[in-house]
Amino acid sequence: MKQLQSMNRLLLGPGPSAVHPDVLKAMATPLVGHLDPYFFEVMNGTREMLRTVFGTKNELTIPMSGTGSAGMETVFVNLIEPGDKVIVCVNGVFGERMKDVAERCGASVVEVTAPWGQPIDPDEIRKALEKNGQVKLVAIVQAETSTGVRQPLKEVSEIVHEHGALFAVDSVTALGGIPVDVDENGIDACYSGTQKCLSAPPGLSPVTMSDDAVQAIRKRKTKVQSWYLDLGMIANYWGEDRFYHHTAPISMVFALHEALRILLNEGLENVYKRHEDNGKLLQQELQSAGFELLAAEGYRLPQLTAFRLPQGLDDIRLRRELLNLYGIEVGGGLGPLKGQIWRVGLMGHSSNLANVRLFMGALQDILNRNK
Amino acid sequence: MKQLQSMNRLLLGPGPSAVHPDVLKAMATPLVGHLDPYFFEVMNGTREMLRTVFGTKNELTIPMSGTGSAGMETVFVNLIEPGDKVIVCVNGVFGERMKDVAERCGASVVEVTAPWGQPIDPDEIRKALEKNGQVKLVAIVQAETSTGVRQPLKEVSEIVHEHGALFAVDSVTALGGIPVDVDENGIDACYSGTQKCLSAPPGLSPVTMSDDAVQAIRKRKTKVQSWYLDLGMIANYWGEDRFYHHTAPISMVFALHEALRILLNEGLENVYKRHEDNGKLLQQELQSAGFELLAAEGYRLPQLTAFRLPQGLDDIRLRRELLNLYGIEVGGGLGPLKGQIWRVGLMGHSSNLANVRLFMGALQDILNRNK
Repeated sequence: MKQLQSMNRLLLGPGPSAVHPDVLKAMATPLVGHLDPYFFEVMNGTREMLRTVFGTKNELTIPMSGTGSAGMETVFVNLIEPGDKVIVCVNGVFGERMKDVAERCGASVVEVTAPWGQPIDPDEIRKALEKNGQVKLVAIVQAETSTGVRQPLKEVSEIVHEHGALFAVDSVTALGGIPVDVDENGIDACYSGTQKCLSAPPGLSPVTMSDDAVQAIRKRKTKVQSWYLDLGMIANYWGEDRFYHHTAPISMVFALHEALRILLNEGLENVYKRHEDNGKLLQQELQSAGFELLAAEGYRLPQLTAFRLPQGLDDIRLRRELLNLYGIEVGGGLGPLKGQIWRVGLMGHSSNLANVRLFMGALQDILNRNK
Repeated sequence: MKQLQSMNRLLLGPGPSAVHPDVLKAMATPLVGHLDPYFFEVMNGTREMLRTVFGTKNELTIPMSGTGSAGMETVFVNLIEPGDKVIVCVNGVFGERMKDVAERCGASVVEVTAPWGQPIDPDEIRKALEKNGQVKLVAIVQAETSTGVRQPLKEVSEIVHEHGALFAVDSVTALGGIPVDVDENGIDACYSGTQKCLSAPPGLSPVTMSDDAVQAIRKRKTKVQSWYLDLGMIANYWGEDRFYHHTAPISMVFALHEALRILLNEGLENVYKRHEDNGKLLQQELQSAGFELLAAEGYRLPQLTAFRLPQGLDDIRLRRELLNLYGIEVGGGLGPLKGQIWRVGLMGHSSNLANVRLFMGALQDILNRNK
């Protein structure tokens, strides 16, 4: 078998994003045991920094030992029991995924939809809550990775809480790129991933749960259907008791620790402004060059921009050329948008001025070659 | 927040084991995307090498995106539907865990037990099969990490297949240390972890499924209760279709690729002999020094040795001294063995002659200090 090669890739897709060299170094740190006193220090530091980035005081704030989708599943398996009514907002792939995951937990799911590229209308959620009696949980995606739509949360949260439901938010592509503000936005359950705006490799899913969510877990009548994602047990390992549950992905926790440290050293406000500035610039440049953005105006994520490919172009071939000639990875469209859009991520360490210029130059060149 | 430190630890516990420097380097390889053509090559190579180490031709052989317990859960959520009858062999913590996981899938579980430190008697499995009508699956642990017991598989497998059941084996601590021989042993479902004898960091769980197991999954009447671990979908990403499911833990796959390459370069037979020789030597040295081994003679794992601490000694304090003075980590007892045994791992890169000598010397010193 051939030895592993290092490839020269610029990751400008919907994730993973480029990883800071110091985070790569952390990945290569010699291991310590998952019950080593030093690892407990690293765990505590990681949790403290995660709370800051999530904007929460939630005690139950930990990175789950799987990628973002494991975080999604964590929220549903822990909060939902068979028969529970759940409203899932669907305006892209990740809303659809939440619906699938919730149903596998035995939830009775009511969908609130919007066209892909549009945000969810809070009034539609209100109507669904009024029509459906006791709803346990309303779930929404803050940063829809399949479309680049940014979902405002405050008004939705108020409506959800007026109706006594728990509020769950997918912040996989949001966390570390735009404010999530878990406490201020009244979010009860929130999950993310390490490989987007946190700029660590994929492999962990930060999750945070409010006191109300923790109470809901305590009041369960049935066991959580997943042993691996059972927060009741995992919290005993990440908390003071340090009960062994499963062997934590130690190197990934090292990497997340360093990624969070670098992010907080830059300062949350500076990080958000950098994402905002570079994202806006890319979107302006794309529009000036005649491209149509997918996400509705006023609801565009700075860290992920979806734009329509001119008709008649071969999406796969163009992306292959971009990769082969420039080493640049961008994402194609998912589901109904397959072949129609490109998704360009300026996330975390990938979000800088040079990457905007480079991408626009490379895009023009590739299009010229395919005229 | 303080920067991450590198600690000087010698990992001689029940896992994680020491990681080869070239595998640590692989962890720091700059990322490529999870849909990058080069990553597909790495995935294919990893699967091919996993098949060699598992001793199987199974097409469905992939590393799941979680630690060993996620592999355990993968086997049960995919093979079990509510009401299915399952026999779980329990002679340690990981047998108990399998029972818990199986029950969370709605299985009706029949236990076959043996005292901790003893292997499971195949006749007991035969009796349980004869008594319980149609059993779908029999599950057993090949290398019980809580006791150091090695379970012979061949006879059990024959009994299981005579009764038309599927045979599932936990090889978390076995794979890469002793032969698992999936095809030769008629194993239908097998899972492992990266942080034991494969000597990669924790974070992936290699899983392999026989054609019969794949058929059983195809014949399911209900959806797999875990979206994250649904092999039907994940196989489409690791197979030729390359359908996006979740973002693979790319760096961990890099590390596993290199760990497997190093292992196979040494040669499976050489690797097994190294584990056998060093494990036997450690066990002889311990016995010569007057320690009692926990596992029954003839059923001792070379890669993990459990021995009884002399009575009246403070387990926690002694292990803390071993860590502080020597940087050596070993494991304590779990469950009913808490405070009574130490578990010493000579797994993968940790299995060498120097570590046997060093551990024996350090142990004597610590005991002398605590006389």
